[in-house]
Amino acid sequence: MALLIKNGTVINADQTLKADVLCDEGKILAVGPDLEAPAGAEVIDAAGQYVMPGGVDPHTHMQLPFMGTVASEDFFTGTRAGLAGGTTMIIDFVIPSPQQSLLEAYGTWREWASRSVSDYSFHVAVTWWDESVRDEMKILVEQEGVNSFKHFMAYKNAIMAEDETLVNSFTRCMELGAMPTVHAENGELVYHLQKKLAEQGITGPEGHPLSRPSEVEGEAANRAIRFAQTLGVPLYLVHVSCKEALGEISRARQEGQRVYGEVLAGHLELDDGVYRSDDWDFAAAHVMSPPFRPKEHQSALWKGLQGGTLQTTATDHCCFCTDQKAMGKDDFSMIPNGTAGVEDRMMIMWDSGVNTGRLTMNEFVAVTSANAAQIFNIYPQKGRVAEGSDADIVIWDPAQSKTISAKTHHQNVDFNIFEGRTVTGVPSHTISQGKVVYANGELFVEEGAGRYIKRPAFASPFAAQKRFNEAHTPTAVERD
Amino acid sequence: MALLIKNGTVINADQTLKADVLCDEGKILAVGPDLEAPAGAEVIDAAGQYVMPGGVDPHTHMQLPFMGTVASEDFFTGTRAGLAGGTTMIIDFVIPSPQQSLLEAYGTWREWASRSVSDYSFHVAVTWWDESVRDEMKILVEQEGVNSFKHFMAYKNAIMAEDETLVNSFTRCMELGAMPTVHAENGELVYHLQKKLAEQGITGPEGHPLSRPSEVEGEAANRAIRFAQTLGVPLYLVHVSCKEALGEISRARQEGQRVYGEVLAGHLELDDGVYRSDDWDFAAAHVMSPPFRPKEHQSALWKGLQGGTLQTTATDHCCFCTDQKAMGKDDFSMIPNGTAGVEDRMMIMWDSGVNTGRLTMNEFVAVTSANAAQIFNIYPQKGRVAEGSDADIVIWDPAQSKTISAKTHHQNVDFNIFEGRTVTGVPSHTISQGKVVYANGELFVEEGAGRYIKRPAFASPFAAQKRFNEAHTPTAVERD
Amino acid sequence: MALLIKNGTVINADQTLKADVLCDEGKILAVGPDLEAPAGAEVIDAAGQYVMPGGVDPHTHMQLPFMGTVASEDFFTGTRAGLAGGTTMIIDFVIPSPQQSLLEAYGTWREWASRSVSDYSFHVAVTWWDESVRDEMKILVEQEGVNSFKHFMAYKNAIMAEDETLVNSFTRCMELGAMPTVHAENGELVYHLQKKLAEQGITGPEGHPLSRPSEVEGEAANRAIRFAQTLGVPLYLVHVSCKEALGEISRARQEGQRVYGEVLAGHLELDDGVYRSDDWDFAAAHVMSPPFRPKEHQSALWKGLQGGTLQTTATDHCCFCTDQKAMGKDDFSMIPNGTAGVEDRMMIMWDSGVNTGRLTMNEFVAVTSANAAQIFNIYPQKGRVAEGSDADIVIWDPAQSKTISAKTHHQNVDFNIFEGRTVTGVPSHTISQGKVVYANGELFVEEGAGRYIKRPAFASPFAAQKRFNEAHTPTAVERD
Amino acid sequence: MALLIKNGTVINADQTLKADVLCDEGKILAVGPDLEAPAGAEVIDAAGQYVMPGGVDPHTHMQLPFMGTVASEDFFTGTRAGLAGGTTMIIDFVIPSPQQSLLEAYGTWREWASRSVSDYSFHVAVTWWDESVRDEMKILVEQEGVNSFKHFMAYKNAIMAEDETLVNSFTRCMELGAMPTVHAENGELVYHLQKKLAEQGITGPEGHPLSRPSEVEGEAANRAIRFAQTLGVPLYLVHVSCKEALGEISRARQEGQRVYGEVLAGHLELDDGVYRSDDWDFAAAHVMSPPFRPKEHQSALWKGLQGGTLQTTATDHCCFCTDQKAMGKDDFSMIPNGTAGVEDRMMIMWDSGVNTGRLTMNEFVAVTSANAAQIFNIYPQKGRVAEGSDADIVIWDPAQSKTISAKTHHQNVDFNIFEGRTVTGVPSHTISQGKVVYANGELFVEEGAGRYIKRPAFASPFAAQKRFNEAHTPTAVERD
Repeated sequence: MALLIKNGTVINADQTLKADVLCDEGKILAVGPDLEAPAGAEVIDAAGQYVMPGGVDPHTHMQLPFMGTVASEDFFTGTRAGLAGGTTMIIDFVIPSPQQSLLEAYGTWREWASRSVSDYSFHVAVTWWDESVRDEMKILVEQEGVNSFKHFMAYKNAIMAEDETLVNSFTRCMELGAMPTVHAENGELVYHLQKKLAEQGITGPEGHPLSRPSEVEGEAANRAIRFAQTLGVPLYLVHVSCKEALGEISRARQEGQRVYGEVLAGHLELDDGVYRSDDWDFAAAHVMSPPFRPKEHQSALWKGLQGGTLQTTATDHCCFCTDQKAMGKDDFSMIPNGTAGVEDRMMIMWDSGVNTGRLTMNEFVAVTSANAAQIFNIYPQKGRVAEGSDADIVIWDPAQSKTISAKTHHQNVDFNIFEGRTVTGVPSHTISQGKVVYANGELFVEEGAGRYIKRPAFASPFAAQKRFNEAHTPTAVERD
Repeated sequence: MALLIKNGTVINADQTLKADVLCDEGKILAVGPDLEAPAGAEVIDAAGQYVMPGGVDPHTHMQLPFMGTVASEDFFTGTRAGLAGGTTMIIDFVIPSPQQSLLEAYGTWREWASRSVSDYSFHVAVTWWDESVRDEMKILVEQEGVNSFKHFMAYKNAIMAEDETLVNSFTRCMELGAMPTVHAENGELVYHLQKKLAEQGITGPEGHPLSRPSEVEGEAANRAIRFAQTLGVPLYLVHVSCKEALGEISRARQEGQRVYGEVLAGHLELDDGVYRSDDWDFAAAHVMSPPFRPKEHQSALWKGLQGGTLQTTATDHCCFCTDQKAMGKDDFSMIPNGTAGVEDRMMIMWDSGVNTGRLTMNEFVAVTSANAAQIFNIYPQKGRVAEGSDADIVIWDPAQSKTISAKTHHQNVDFNIFEGRTVTGVPSHTISQGKVVYANGELFVEEGAGRYIKRPAFASPFAAQKRFNEAHTPTAVERD
Repeated sequence: MALLIKNGTVINADQTLKADVLCDEGKILAVGPDLEAPAGAEVIDAAGQYVMPGGVDPHTHMQLPFMGTVASEDFFTGTRAGLAGGTTMIIDFVIPSPQQSLLEAYGTWREWASRSVSDYSFHVAVTWWDESVRDEMKILVEQEGVNSFKHFMAYKNAIMAEDETLVNSFTRCMELGAMPTVHAENGELVYHLQKKLAEQGITGPEGHPLSRPSEVEGEAANRAIRFAQTLGVPLYLVHVSCKEALGEISRARQEGQRVYGEVLAGHLELDDGVYRSDDWDFAAAHVMSPPFRPKEHQSALWKGLQGGTLQTTATDHCCFCTDQKAMGKDDFSMIPNGTAGVEDRMMIMWDSGVNTGRLTMNEFVAVTSANAAQIFNIYPQKGRVAEGSDADIVIWDPAQSKTISAKTHHQNVDFNIFEGRTVTGVPSHTISQGKVVYANGELFVEEGAGRYIKRPAFASPFAAQKRFNEAHTPTAVERD
Repeated sequence: MALLIKNGTVINADQTLKADVLCDEGKILAVGPDLEAPAGAEVIDAAGQYVMPGGVDPHTHMQLPFMGTVASEDFFTGTRAGLAGGTTMIIDFVIPSPQQSLLEAYGTWREWASRSVSDYSFHVAVTWWDESVRDEMKILVEQEGVNSFKHFMAYKNAIMAEDETLVNSFTRCMELGAMPTVHAENGELVYHLQKKLAEQGITGPEGHPLSRPSEVEGEAANRAIRFAQTLGVPLYLVHVSCKEALGEISRARQEGQRVYGEVLAGHLELDDGVYRSDDWDFAAAHVMSPPFRPKEHQSALWKGLQGGTLQTTATDHCCFCTDQKAMGKDDFSMIPNGTAGVEDRMMIMWDSGVNTGRLTMNEFVAVTSANAAQIFNIYPQKGRVAEGSDADIVIWDPAQSKTISAKTHHQNVDFNIFEGRTVTGVPSHTISQGKVVYANGELFVEEGAGRYIKRPAFASPFAAQKRFNEAHTPTAVERD
């Protein structure tokens, strides 16, 4: 059934225009003034509202098995919550155990994700190295539409990638045209600090940020960036949380290196005061890595987003309920790491970004949707309201307010890090594959309606990087 | 007559796609696969070629009266040369003398420009201040489609704007939604150095860069940026030529300030060695302000463009022939300042930018066309190959080479700063208002066919700036 | 009468040693282990204490006529308060009115200062320019021992030095081997903001910092530094109060420029919250320029001092009592600018610097005494505990605590910006010219005992700067 | 026998004075005007010359067994060459093999060094880790006067310290009050690049710099600095050769971290063009790590020295003759790494530093002698011309010139990287332990006259660091 959105203002990353939007068969058919509604079409009057590409959250972990438990949010509930917040696509992570086949793990995650109600895709983690990993990366890229691989520089003795693995995997990524991404924290230092804090008798959640200070992230960010520079490959840093890491990205970009940074809504808004709460559950509910940071970092991150050092916003949505968090009652290092947000991200970004004048509306679209789609090479299928694009759209009511709460959110977790925050500017409608799946507070989703989205290799920067590498190929000196 | 471009690859700033492009009545009617040619349509086969928005050169000075002479290139010859190089629009400058009415000067320039063969627009300079200037700025913005005002921080005792003028004009710009732009060089220091060099007996063109070292530009760039920050207004710096000014823009952007930088093709490619040539004519031919810089600056500027600190490329096209340059035979400070380039810019940018891997093709479009169109608020009328946009298009042949020379160029000047440079990647066709005006070396232009393009006020960043300013409005403390 | 300090630990900027110190006739005769007390010598047991060079405060304004009143602290009371806090020398400012002879003003200040109880010297301000100023600068340097000149970049329509004056005076300073110093705030912007705030109805002390935001200081700092760079002269910035100005100094120093920065104890410790106090008198008592800044600046300034970007600490001691401050009751721009601190500086620096681990004890001596003595070329006469140096010494008791208060301080003003602050580490004895002038809370001073200290021109950096300038002298190109 | 130096100008790091210098029994007895020569004293007339502390070279490798051969310069010839160049003390390195006892290696090196003709000391390398290393570090510090430990971050599969070793050793250093030092290059990347270059068929010395690009040093510098920050310990980086590493030190210092940087005379002066010489021997003679860098780095390093980011200059003196270098004829990675310079350093620093105006003479003393003595805690025994200091002195003739050459130098190697360089400013006399050991081209040394100098732990910054760490000790939150 066709859908016509009338009288709204279309916001794309590069322009703003008064136009109607006509969708059918999952696609946008037309964007223009005074479009006629086809017979039987559903019509939404978007007067006074903005019509924008649905959000792309490039960093979620639905039903992740982690630290001895499993994230409470599954692909069904998680993508549903995303739609309630205007996010129409997620990119989740396949995380093979060390020595596990990447393809095997990929198969498992694909199975889990089949219940999704919105479109989705996967990054795949490289947690170890041998020739089979090298081979399977190729299969994933060429046959499965995976164009990005993740590397954890933290979690020593678990999924941490050693320097040798980074060198091998980054090199392989460039050959395949896939983006290497990193979780940047120095696992050796974190391990040392966890032991030291235990010796000092610090066992509560306040120990969590103490064991992962921002310099530990700065170190890893620099290391990954220098590896990418040396090896001649683009790089994407997930959840940049501090000015140290931001500074490294900024420096690299100003040196002409193709480095991208993602920031979480939580890191933009919350500070580390939460960990010193008297209430253990409250403090533990905020345990995620990297942790929330002292206030000066929030300001720096916002400026990084405004100035273009950071390109994308995400959530690292990974839910653990209060009883799960309690696993670390006696040892903060056992608290399952993760917080929610897939539903809240766009409202937070609008309220703190657009309403304050930090971002234009076009920049809002860029950082919530278009940039992620471009970097992960699914643009303009996603990330743009334009003829031919997927009809994944959010209609935004800038005048409406709402108070965020775990009591009312759709996320399958009993806590919300933005609890009590009133935002102005909310989605009135979310459209996925041309269908209204959320309207004025009500969800109309269908389990399994979401599709796995293949992402082709060799996004635009790779061609330039290749020409650059070729222009810098070393030559031997001829001597007698 | 309709025009169909078949089999090419369309490059926009945000995406690349295989598509045909259909134009008629000056507009792009359709962009898509396998378009049908309407009856009687002209068809161009662009197989193996790129179809891109025509270049926008936001900084030219056609037939400028300056330093006792008049630039040799007029609006007819100048815009024609632009078309030969793939540039389909220029933004030139109205420069009132101190005490002259802005409207009067504007009228004069409009008259001169009526002979143009491509579309054009005007920045207007504010060289002095009183209430009438303030009033005329409003008329220019609201009635004449001028959305940017220029301020010269150099040229003491001539058109230099004092700090007080900067404060008043920047403030007024914000009220009107017009972009203040600056030529950043400290006129007081230049004046002092010119006198000192004269005392030292340095009268040749080598004195020119010595009288305008890069720190003099760095100072003015910083001053303008701090004024813009204090007054809460966006800012655009023309012809950023050195790492000092670049550093200031970078810093400001990273602090969240809305500052934009333009770089000239010449500053990216040439160094200051030219001024120490034994050949006076050769040295003098390169005299422009800011001057060409030591080599380290070129590398810095390229990185600034790659990393997003600089957004636009231009030429400051301002032609003086050898006999005009000779006016400064005994005193370098009397050499008319200016060099050509409106025809060469896009080829230089492609060859040095895309072929080397510094820029993606999308970034090429951004920095030669789309970004200028966005900043000066004529996007997507200009700067995008899309349905509804003006049919100003360049078809680019990446395989063809050409050697730049004053003997063969279309610019009305007897010198070319890129003389002898062979570039790979040239325009095979230029289309203006839907008509083929340049094809494989031949021009098909019509005097006066170019239109004055009105540029509306309040481009996207102004709304954000306004919200930001309101959020930071000071309040009084209530005391008894 | 000889004085022997026994059993203490001598702290100089470059070393720490257990040694006795013998003084006589105003000089230090010996520094070494187990010195014998000459017959009749006074002996102080400094066991457990530190024996350090007396403080040099390079920035005070005793009995300054300013803004329609006169500072309440005169040279007698002011230098006495300094001694009570361990400061044994001040460098005050001669501030000629525009058009006034520098020598005439100098004579007036010398007369006022003759009542001083500790040694003192003078910077002289250049507030205007003509050939007579140029000539008098030479006389001051060569005959009067003035080796530094001050330039106010703020106070438009009063003592503000225009760019032309800066160029002339900086150039003259280099010829004479005298250090140019600047008060860096953009007077034009301050003037504009004062008017704008008045229009907005903001008349209270909260308007003071709003009229002088940190970017206004950053601009002027950059401008002065670029002028010094262009003209090839060292530069000293007084009262650096913000990260913007600090950043400029840091950048310049890293580029090899000889730039020095001074920071006030107040700017290191206080934030701008004081101006929003409900208590008008309290708020007004903190009015000084540059104003106290948001908290992030304090942290930056401390790091600047630790990392060597800033070299000296001072107070800008300039006292106005509550009734004087009341002159600006209806208009914050009429509140006399100034705060006290000459007595408190060293204790604040020790408590916040040494006790926290930010500074070593040697660095404490450097930033409170030795560096100022070196920069202003009176080292090691001042600034070092060594044989042959003036016997200006402070004996420091690191274990003793004290609470700072206007009720107990010796400063002639009814307010103390550090009121209620308890510091650990205080002077037990101050020795001036070999005499104990302060001991355990009691003062033993003599009016007029202080001497005017001539400061010779061409401190160490000037020779290097001269060689550098010569190595960079431009040459003409020989052409036919 | 006493020695009196008459009529010279004494230069220390903090001051300049006309004074005579009297020495006896290895010590300086007096520094002052018009000193009387004791009976039988040797008198040197230093009119027109500078009397400065003898050079301290904190980085040499005499007779080092390395890469399958042994450095050609032994402690006798090496310290003799040092004296000929005005350097009166070296700090060499004990480098235990992995699994070798530190004490055992230390004993070996002490034995080798007993032939030295000037004073010397040792850093000890930590190349592996277990509890015995931890214990032996304590013995070395407390009983043997070792206050610094070296860590190689390069040389994978040989002496490279893994992250875990860095964490353990840095932590131990802080406990002991010893300075950790690092050779900063990422061994994993170097290893990868060596393999890759071999695959590309690049086997000549031009491959050496290609296998160790500056980003590889920047990475390791950052990592070491972040480790030091996290663990709360000062840090010293040896042979900083590039702007990347310099930038990291600068950033850290501006953040208040106690980080020190050393630069080699060679890295200040030579660029990487040498490696592309047609002459294999010439190219190979320059192979050292880090390699010489592109020109822009030299300029940056000089500025780093001028601005205080770098504190010391050294040579990494490690000599291999042409036949030794030939071991890598077929594989650059087998060329023994090292170049000479202990004799040349001070002349190079004077000529390029002082004569150009980059450094004052006081700064020259600081960077060639005093700073190393302070950082390694032997000041003012070394590094200062003052009563009580060791009589290690160089008398400098600023007017005399000399051309450096392997044919005339005293270094036991058949190559000089400064070959043919004429310098102005040379030592006329070198005095070691109060004896003239070099005068106007002639050496008067005695084998074994040099003494091992113990260096006490806990140099000045350690106390501050400790207070800082204590002030930042984490605390637990009390919860019910």
